[in-house]
Amino acid sequence: MRVCVVGGGVIGSLFAAHLARVSEVWVLTRREGHAEALNRDGLRVSGKSEFVAELSATANPEELPPFELAIVCTKATDLDSAIARMARSIPPSAVMMTTQNGLGAETIIQRHGSWEIIAGVTFMSGIRHSDTYVEYELDTPTWIGPGEPAPSWETVVEVAELIEKAGLKVQAMEDVRPAQWSKLIFNATVNVVSALTELSHNRHFREEDQLWSLGHLVHELMEEGKQVADAAGIALYEDPWEMNLHAVRRGETDSGAYRHLPSMLEDVLARRPTEVDFITGELVKTGIRYGVSTPLHLALYRLIKAKESAWVEKSSPTLSLA
Amino acid sequence: MRVCVVGGGVIGSLFAAHLARVSEVWVLTRREGHAEALNRDGLRVSGKSEFVAELSATANPEELPPFELAIVCTKATDLDSAIARMARSIPPSAVMMTTQNGLGAETIIQRHGSWEIIAGVTFMSGIRHSDTYVEYELDTPTWIGPGEPAPSWETVVEVAELIEKAGLKVQAMEDVRPAQWSKLIFNATVNVVSALTELSHNRHFREEDQLWSLGHLVHELMEEGKQVADAAGIALYEDPWEMNLHAVRRGETDSGAYRHLPSMLEDVLARRPTEVDFITGELVKTGIRYGVSTPLHLALYRLIKAKESAWVEKSSPTLSLA
Repeated sequence: MRVCVVGGGVIGSLFAAHLARVSEVWVLTRREGHAEALNRDGLRVSGKSEFVAELSATANPEELPPFELAIVCTKATDLDSAIARMARSIPPSAVMMTTQNGLGAETIIQRHGSWEIIAGVTFMSGIRHSDTYVEYELDTPTWIGPGEPAPSWETVVEVAELIEKAGLKVQAMEDVRPAQWSKLIFNATVNVVSALTELSHNRHFREEDQLWSLGHLVHELMEEGKQVADAAGIALYEDPWEMNLHAVRRGETDSGAYRHLPSMLEDVLARRPTEVDFITGELVKTGIRYGVSTPLHLALYRLIKAKESAWVEKSSPTLSLA
Repeated sequence: MRVCVVGGGVIGSLFAAHLARVSEVWVLTRREGHAEALNRDGLRVSGKSEFVAELSATANPEELPPFELAIVCTKATDLDSAIARMARSIPPSAVMMTTQNGLGAETIIQRHGSWEIIAGVTFMSGIRHSDTYVEYELDTPTWIGPGEPAPSWETVVEVAELIEKAGLKVQAMEDVRPAQWSKLIFNATVNVVSALTELSHNRHFREEDQLWSLGHLVHELMEEGKQVADAAGIALYEDPWEMNLHAVRRGETDSGAYRHLPSMLEDVLARRPTEVDFITGELVKTGIRYGVSTPLHLALYRLIKAKESAWVEKSSPTLSLA
């Protein structure tokens, strides 16, 4: 199977390098220099896996040979322009797999073509040391399932087996929405609170001993999110508060080895547009659709959008869904 | 009348310089170098007033001659240690005038002695260019009234007349709480939102055209605050939303001349402890006392306290009331 990995960030690099061990991989990069470096040096992985992968890369979609699977690893904010740029190079029979944070990635892909979609939710994380070197930190399974339009269940299983054979953890699910919503509620809370406080996901996120303890707010945000999921008829795959406790504990026991900052805080520190429209925005709008009010998420949504305004207003309006 | 001004920040400098034109003024500074500079060079004011005042200054409370009035101009977070340090030098007959943001200053002074208290609320602002030079920007009136224990009404009027004669705007009120609460609600909203978004008090604070517009949050925070004031039996002196519109408009028409950032944002940028316990903390606790819930203020309180934790936890615990 020939696989095209769209985007060479942390997630794209992890998928591309591992898959290159079991299939032909092409990476579609944004920058030409990035593609040149990958073609020349390969892609090194350290951490949970240790190897150097040989693969092909290009910044020009027209140079891509026909592929059967595209794993789309851009940030949600870059997805629309990435698919627009490559749409003519995607074979009609290709399966598109999303990995973006939040909701809305499928809707964006649907705008550009009628490819079958596999919806993916990934919690993998790592550190991108350079264009050709990524450190694999958190090796939790990626959840995948039929998107809309849905491929056959056999196709989903085949993709899962390929990812597993490549050395990554994966779980195929007939309905990925319970997992998607668990992560959505987790991200809408942890990412947004981290971006506003500029704290890494530390012990304050679980503390509830004082009136002003942050854990109360984390808990309340997650409860609001659960009410929306409930109204939308989604039984969560994992409880977001348990995910929170687990992640904080992992950070504490790894004694500083776990250096990964929540992505929205990274965006804020780098003054990039955040994914808040795809995360909190989608949560709040789903709440409105089902008659569930989410006053705390809405408050934090407004704070992030206001914070972003300082830099987003000066850049291209196409970067923002808003 | 001999006046002791406690603290040589913006507000302290503005009071000290103006009052030195009509009375004997001593400034109690924290740093010795600051006192030396004031004794040597005097205190220059530019902007709404233009003059250089001669006055006396010391960093040692024991060097203060007996005074009749102290205008206490430290930040709320420094008040307790400032009064503790000078308590033995305050004549029992002196009147203490507060100017701190938020609520709770009177309670702190009461811990150290039984002086009569004038409660002050000031919206003056300016820029401190150096130890001996302050620019007077916003010349709105300071509101003063009887605190607890209350001086006679004649004393309040006498102090108001002194401040007015010195060239500052002032208004004596029999009950200062309506003004105090107007400013409390304004600050709990504008200062806190500014500190979290890192925006100056700009047009976003009044915009309400989109779901995510910041003006909605500003409006809702002010409504929560008004419900608390209402439950506490306080009829506000000014409507906080009108104060917000007025201040944003002033910032827009001054075409950048108004460079003053909300003080809590300044604290956050300088990684100093903020006054949030005295502002949002007091608002939330008053709400609890009167059975009014303030979920949005509580959420923002928790975000600021968490944000502060990154630097407050490393410094002296006595700096924080929490």
